[in-house]
Amino acid sequence: MFIVQKYGGTSVGSVERIQAVAQRVLATVSEGHNVAVIVSAMAGETNRLTTLAGAMGGTRNHREMDVLLATGEQVSVALLSMAINAAGGEAVSFLGHQIRMQTDSAFSRARIRAIDARALHGALSNGKVPIIAGFQGQDAEGNITTLGRGGSDTSAVAVAASLQADPNFDDDVCCEIYTDVKGVFTTDPNICSEARLIKRITFDEMMELASLGAKVLQIRSVELASKYRVALHVRSSFTQEGGTMVVHDDEGFEKVVVTGVSLDRDQARITVRDLPLAPGTQADLFGPLGELGVVVDMIVQNPPLDGRTNLSFTLPRTALSQTLELLEPLMAKLGAKTRSDDDVCKVSIVGVGMRSHAGVAQKMFSVLAKEGVEILMISTSEIKVSCIVALRYGELAVRALHAAFELGVG
Amino acid sequence: MFIVQKYGGTSVGSVERIQAVAQRVLATVSEGHNVAVIVSAMAGETNRLTTLAGAMGGTRNHREMDVLLATGEQVSVALLSMAINAAGGEAVSFLGHQIRMQTDSAFSRARIRAIDARALHGALSNGKVPIIAGFQGQDAEGNITTLGRGGSDTSAVAVAASLQADPNFDDDVCCEIYTDVKGVFTTDPNICSEARLIKRITFDEMMELASLGAKVLQIRSVELASKYRVALHVRSSFTQEGGTMVVHDDEGFEKVVVTGVSLDRDQARITVRDLPLAPGTQADLFGPLGELGVVVDMIVQNPPLDGRTNLSFTLPRTALSQTLELLEPLMAKLGAKTRSDDDVCKVSIVGVGMRSHAGVAQKMFSVLAKEGVEILMISTSEIKVSCIVALRYGELAVRALHAAFELGVG
Repeated sequence: MFIVQKYGGTSVGSVERIQAVAQRVLATVSEGHNVAVIVSAMAGETNRLTTLAGAMGGTRNHREMDVLLATGEQVSVALLSMAINAAGGEAVSFLGHQIRMQTDSAFSRARIRAIDARALHGALSNGKVPIIAGFQGQDAEGNITTLGRGGSDTSAVAVAASLQADPNFDDDVCCEIYTDVKGVFTTDPNICSEARLIKRITFDEMMELASLGAKVLQIRSVELASKYRVALHVRSSFTQEGGTMVVHDDEGFEKVVVTGVSLDRDQARITVRDLPLAPGTQADLFGPLGELGVVVDMIVQNPPLDGRTNLSFTLPRTALSQTLELLEPLMAKLGAKTRSDDDVCKVSIVGVGMRSHAGVAQKMFSVLAKEGVEILMISTSEIKVSCIVALRYGELAVRALHAAFELGVG
Repeated sequence: MFIVQKYGGTSVGSVERIQAVAQRVLATVSEGHNVAVIVSAMAGETNRLTTLAGAMGGTRNHREMDVLLATGEQVSVALLSMAINAAGGEAVSFLGHQIRMQTDSAFSRARIRAIDARALHGALSNGKVPIIAGFQGQDAEGNITTLGRGGSDTSAVAVAASLQADPNFDDDVCCEIYTDVKGVFTTDPNICSEARLIKRITFDEMMELASLGAKVLQIRSVELASKYRVALHVRSSFTQEGGTMVVHDDEGFEKVVVTGVSLDRDQARITVRDLPLAPGTQADLFGPLGELGVVVDMIVQNPPLDGRTNLSFTLPRTALSQTLELLEPLMAKLGAKTRSDDDVCKVSIVGVGMRSHAGVAQKMFSVLAKEGVEILMISTSEIKVSCIVALRYGELAVRALHAAFELGVG
């Protein structure tokens, strides 16, 4: 088997942990597998660098920020390669540009366009383990780019996909994502002590959970793995136990109705009252937000009365103040009033079984009603129901739903 | 004028100092000059990284060490670019591989083969100041290499030479080396309070001083500047005053007999007694040392008696223990005895005027004799006389010679 292992910042957060990772890599090699490793920056390093950058003043220079942050992964690959060599193995490091990890030029949130897996051949055919810097790439002009928060997951999946597509290797490829938790849980164990490790989850469910704020995997890495059919295994670098396999829907297994419950606390709500309705009103409202880079999530618009309407939408809480700054004068000009709440959160249930089961949303609403939790907004997809509720009810709602859908029962 | 400025680790050792460097760069730009900047790692960073590497255990892996250390300069170029942009200028960073700083593959002590100055054209023609990572390059296979201690000086001179040779630029080129001292002094001001800043010094003298342990400039940078006739200006980043101009001998100025006195404390001496002499004895002795990478300096061999001789040589003190480890069993096999001193130092006088003045060495010996300093070994070149003396007499010898050759008189 060809195993691509990705180790996050906590897994390489100290000298001892890097040495432990080296042992794990060597153990996998000695089981007879081909191994390639992707690593993140040591925990704390990105913060240290960001603080230095902030001290330089001025507006953020995204190109130079990427040059700066890319050093974090560069340190990690060098140290891990040294640790593996010291432990008797053979490893060689690769930076983004050295494996031709080509991206677009969107500094700080670049997207991968291509990898030239041939760059790894030399190392692999000499029996060396390639240790690859995650999170970083280069654009067509040779500038250093980075892939955004959690980007190393995406690097790992991209490397796995390119090895899988490479006719030089006919091994099955699996991508192991090592993190500081045991895998994906039915809900956050810090909120609900009944939370259970999910052994198998579909890509669709994983994408919903990732976009709902379960921070185990970067959502783009799940998309990419799904698209290129890369088998994903999310597991802990601190134990030998297996974690969560992310699989395709068609890899038949008993479908549970609800797989997990998630809570996203990074939510805020803006309500615009007495908005005069005309063709293009919504575009005028959300266009400027898009340009700001604010990702609007749910939008609810009431039926209009006398040509005016009330409209609410949610957005990340961190984007609230700059959004209000932009929006309030715009709305005042139209005679509309702007209000905001930053004490809301989003509770969601996710499960591919919903596709074939009616009444799941209804059950969710009843459970919340029974607990006295008022639902402020609702949004649904084929495999997900999300409710915005007051922040103080968030954890209560999660526990009630987790119990009601019997997620804690092994 | 095209000014290449190189800032050492102390000059960019803190947020405030990086901002001061940004101001200095912008001041030079606003005087109408074209500017390119080379920076070292922030003071302390290389030590931090070396400690991390040491903690990984095993023997030193030179390739990965270079990957690790190169991050130091990468951090500096990103931060300085940010600081310049924040101060209203326009800067863009370049890493070694981005300006195609091609080197050989001697990791940790690579030599530059070529630079493609064209990579800087885009930045320069857009009115941007290129901020270039010193100390680093890449070999023909795309591996990251570093140039050894003080390598950023060499990077700066190489960039200056390539700009000078470039038909796209017809400006005169000057390379300013910013450091934490005001320039090159007649001797170390910490040893001799009479030490005086040298306003002009020849490349030959500078090379002798650099190789004698005056740590202002890496010797290879002086060689390179001399070869490509790059004007060098060694000066302090903490003042506006001019420093030391390094010039060619033929740029006529009054020749003083002795320009400077240097003291190199990093010396040790090994003496081999009763060494049986045969053709190849010396090669057998020094061959293995060369393979160890030990640079032997002075060698003195006594006239043989009964086919045996005594032989002494000096080497860097840091290399003493590994050299003895290798040499002692070898010598014992030949029936020779090995002794070592690590309490010696080298005192030297340097000056192009020696070429035309007799009696300079003799005067040095008299001065030392008058002070009761025993001379253990002597070596001379056209423009230099060096004596090995007991370490405890080193500073006394420097002060006596500095006074005797009237170097303190302005």
